[in-house]
Amino acid sequence: MALVTLTTDFGTTDPFVGIMKGVILGRAPGTTIVDLAHDLPPHDVRGGALVLRQAMPYFPRGTIHVAVIDPGVGSARRPLCVETADAFLVGPDNGVLSLAAPPADVRRIVHLTAESFFLSPRSATFHGRDIFAPVAAALAAGTAPLAFGPEVPDMEHLELPPLVYEAAGVRGEVVWVDRFGNLVTSITEEALADFRGRDVSISIRGVRLRGIATSYSSVPAGEPVAIVNSWGHLEIAVREGSAAEVLPAAVGETVRIT
Amino acid sequence: MALVTLTTDFGTTDPFVGIMKGVILGRAPGTTIVDLAHDLPPHDVRGGALVLRQAMPYFPRGTIHVAVIDPGVGSARRPLCVETADAFLVGPDNGVLSLAAPPADVRRIVHLTAESFFLSPRSATFHGRDIFAPVAAALAAGTAPLAFGPEVPDMEHLELPPLVYEAAGVRGEVVWVDRFGNLVTSITEEALADFRGRDVSISIRGVRLRGIATSYSSVPAGEPVAIVNSWGHLEIAVREGSAAEVLPAAVGETVRIT
Amino acid sequence: MALVTLTTDFGTTDPFVGIMKGVILGRAPGTTIVDLAHDLPPHDVRGGALVLRQAMPYFPRGTIHVAVIDPGVGSARRPLCVETADAFLVGPDNGVLSLAAPPADVRRIVHLTAESFFLSPRSATFHGRDIFAPVAAALAAGTAPLAFGPEVPDMEHLELPPLVYEAAGVRGEVVWVDRFGNLVTSITEEALADFRGRDVSISIRGVRLRGIATSYSSVPAGEPVAIVNSWGHLEIAVREGSAAEVLPAAVGETVRIT
Repeated sequence: MALVTLTTDFGTTDPFVGIMKGVILGRAPGTTIVDLAHDLPPHDVRGGALVLRQAMPYFPRGTIHVAVIDPGVGSARRPLCVETADAFLVGPDNGVLSLAAPPADVRRIVHLTAESFFLSPRSATFHGRDIFAPVAAALAAGTAPLAFGPEVPDMEHLELPPLVYEAAGVRGEVVWVDRFGNLVTSITEEALADFRGRDVSISIRGVRLRGIATSYSSVPAGEPVAIVNSWGHLEIAVREGSAAEVLPAAVGETVRIT
Repeated sequence: MALVTLTTDFGTTDPFVGIMKGVILGRAPGTTIVDLAHDLPPHDVRGGALVLRQAMPYFPRGTIHVAVIDPGVGSARRPLCVETADAFLVGPDNGVLSLAAPPADVRRIVHLTAESFFLSPRSATFHGRDIFAPVAAALAAGTAPLAFGPEVPDMEHLELPPLVYEAAGVRGEVVWVDRFGNLVTSITEEALADFRGRDVSISIRGVRLRGIATSYSSVPAGEPVAIVNSWGHLEIAVREGSAAEVLPAAVGETVRIT
Repeated sequence: MALVTLTTDFGTTDPFVGIMKGVILGRAPGTTIVDLAHDLPPHDVRGGALVLRQAMPYFPRGTIHVAVIDPGVGSARRPLCVETADAFLVGPDNGVLSLAAPPADVRRIVHLTAESFFLSPRSATFHGRDIFAPVAAALAAGTAPLAFGPEVPDMEHLELPPLVYEAAGVRGEVVWVDRFGNLVTSITEEALADFRGRDVSISIRGVRLRGIATSYSSVPAGEPVAIVNSWGHLEIAVREGSAAEVLPAAVGETVRIT
């Protein structure tokens, strides 16, 4: 039985997501469909890309991930199917698939052009329903990606803001704020490894934190703490509170490690 | 395997929707359940009716659609099961089922009276759990609608506000605002067909748009655009923005085509 | 086919819930997963416990209920699996499981210590993914609870605020506000039974209501009404309005029956 995940900026007040599921289940009955996130800010391509990258390693091999954050719907941007060693990704060519499928992992990128797989007539505003859901259903039913169109050499790539190495340490920034107000930074566990064992200090918004904690509970309630989070990034949290509100800080805020 | 959809105004902070799923899965194991929308404004019967009408064509034949926007729960309003050529609809007789099941499509309307199918004891406040979910489960398990009660000749009908034909054109109104702030109007593709090929002009809140675009990308970011949307209605959007905020406009706002 | 429910404070903007589903479906393919509630206020352990208690009776025997409201994640608080006559409950030992599993119903409490079932490496911040989802998957695949660790004699218990019996009647409080602004109180149907048949009067925020109504429709729109709700508690509602806004009142507000 095939497994399909959906990541969109469609929200849950409209039936957009449910309609995509209807299309998939009509064409590939018995498919299991999992929602990753639908309440991303409208048009937040990078947010969708981060959701996919964070979630993909926890799904079984062969899972089909559909991501529709698609401000260019109806324009010339290409619809794609990307095959990696572990998964299929389906969505528009605007970078939303790219963080989960770095070049080294990509086996094949297919430009979706075979209209026989699409819904007809095709709307100008809802390719999630008319292109991406039916292609996901065809994959779920066992169709090989090359049936959908020609292989193409590359796709749009997003990059997270690069780390800046300074005299005294490294500078990154906040790239995601989670539901709890935890500030996820661009500084990965690997980048932190250089500092392991040293008396590391983290600065953000004038607050200076000493050391990487091993749990939120290392500090009293209401106090800030730096921790490596569940996707391997440095995170600034406030125990039983919101770092986003307390500091305050948002996506883009600078974080320094020294 | 049966397919059931759920449309409610129950939101997602309470377990109301999950409880309905527990009842369905306990009585009809293996049923696939799809959420259409649960974050409708409380008691928004017309909103629920529009969700159902918009979504129903994209589900396979035989799908069971349950809609519980039910301000009259516990009163004398009748619980119904409606059979059409393609689907079953289950919900209260307050119009919520009517836009998806216009008279020409209805094969049979059944008043749900057979208490043996209901949960017992039956609450005064949650017929989604006590009546509609168990009836949906029975349908999923293959029970024929007439087992639930007597056939009745009609049900409550909602009407979208009718188009008004004026000397110079036609007047409609905004009937839905989607998650992106796009303004969906009561003016259908069929009504627009009269204007096809002519130099059509759309007016709303003093803004005048020339022509129907073929994609949001036909205008620069931040600019308003008129388009036929994914359910075949005229929609006023702002590219990569919210027409509801920019114009501003809400449900009920007048739109004129000349 | 196993049935798993999920109750968390993870919200729906992050892919936390979807990731838990990926882990479960990877390890126990074919499991049906139902969301109970994810939009609880962060760290609202009692809210999660009320959701579980309210929903559990409506799921079939053998359902696996996972609740992750876990402000102490990464600390010494124990992860548990609780077996009752009807269900399995999986979550942290902070009371979140306790309202659904009162001592008389509990068959066995198991401290989850067998790391072979967990994800490795294990994060300090997301035991929903690393401990609770894989244990739920193992239960779904038929593993007996004692495989996960030693039986322990007790767990943390939450208590709802006790009813206070006064000269003239009984005093309780609001314990939950639902999506409609209905105020669910700590006063149960059983406690009300003492007043049955008498001219009962309900007071809250200076408003005095006479009698328990049998449906919201017993009063005109906009008027307050007292009713026994779908989980057997006294509820103060406003017909087609929000009691929380109209009175106004919130969790903790005193309610008196005389």
